[in-house]
Amino acid sequence: MNSKTQPVDFRREVPHGDTHERDVCATCGFVNYVNPKIVTGSIVRHVGRILLCRRAIEPRIGFWTLPAGFMELGETAEQAAMREAREEANAAIVIDRLLAVYTIPRIAQVQIMYLAHLGGNDFSAGPESLEVMLAGWDEIPWEELAFPSVRWALEQYRSVEGSADFAPFSNPPGEYGDPKPL
Amino acid sequence: MNSKTQPVDFRREVPHGDTHERDVCATCGFVNYVNPKIVTGSIVRHVGRILLCRRAIEPRIGFWTLPAGFMELGETAEQAAMREAREEANAAIVIDRLLAVYTIPRIAQVQIMYLAHLGGNDFSAGPESLEVMLAGWDEIPWEELAFPSVRWALEQYRSVEGSADFAPFSNPPGEYGDPKPL
Repeated sequence: MNSKTQPVDFRREVPHGDTHERDVCATCGFVNYVNPKIVTGSIVRHVGRILLCRRAIEPRIGFWTLPAGFMELGETAEQAAMREAREEANAAIVIDRLLAVYTIPRIAQVQIMYLAHLGGNDFSAGPESLEVMLAGWDEIPWEELAFPSVRWALEQYRSVEGSADFAPFSNPPGEYGDPKPL
Repeated sequence: MNSKTQPVDFRREVPHGDTHERDVCATCGFVNYVNPKIVTGSIVRHVGRILLCRRAIEPRIGFWTLPAGFMELGETAEQAAMREAREEANAAIVIDRLLAVYTIPRIAQVQIMYLAHLGGNDFSAGPESLEVMLAGWDEIPWEELAFPSVRWALEQYRSVEGSADFAPFSNPPGEYGDPKPL
């Protein structure tokens, strides 16, 4: 067996000098560090309205969300948010400031949400969206939002709309994005 | 060969429905998503001074840093920052607000930096620190800081010290935490 097909034989143990249990390969000692993943997204404004995307993919297909997705290697958090708006809504956006940092521990996600605005007038549904729209406050489909953090971001932004300097938000008190009990 | 020792045979390819090349196992189809990792830390204040730790570990052993480290699964970003202050400086801290979100693309890190204060009077060097101190502005060892983002956080905080509401910071313009050319 050559090195390319060396078997991986993970055991749970605390590596030397570490404080947490990890998956450590008993064959070669490789430590598989698993850490939370980063989602970046934005509230994109345009003449008093907000860009929303109806999801064409699971999870929550058919529900409305903000342009957001997993950050990739080799980009900044701001560049990742800009890329997501381009991919999901064919929108060139300008990042204005950070709105919020949320954690969803159950799925090990940190969500970094920016305030942004459209750089032009163009937008349309990208391959991950069924449709996109610019919604006024009274047009937001509150009952059809894809994720709790979409609601958090919209409500928190609404509470400071018009002011430039405010402390960024975190999870609403006691909320961790868990599914609502039936 | 049983399933436990199934060989891993990663090839670089774009998985179905994806937009980026990943390591995909040719044997089982497993996609090894590698994303940026999150560091959380804080500027911890106490009677006008700031908690600094001198590193007992590489990288940058012997240099001064803020209590910070890799976020783990199952905790919020704020809890991660509190844990790091406990581990590195035996300090119970209270998170006040978010100061900044930095990206260091070269090492694929997003650094989430909070403002905090000491919950009591106790602090001391933890196992990852050679020593800890509470430094006034004129006592900060600017030439002996461990990382560019430590300087960014301190300088940006100094620029807003005393105000409660301000937009959080990002990387200083054009700075990405790369080593300075000699």
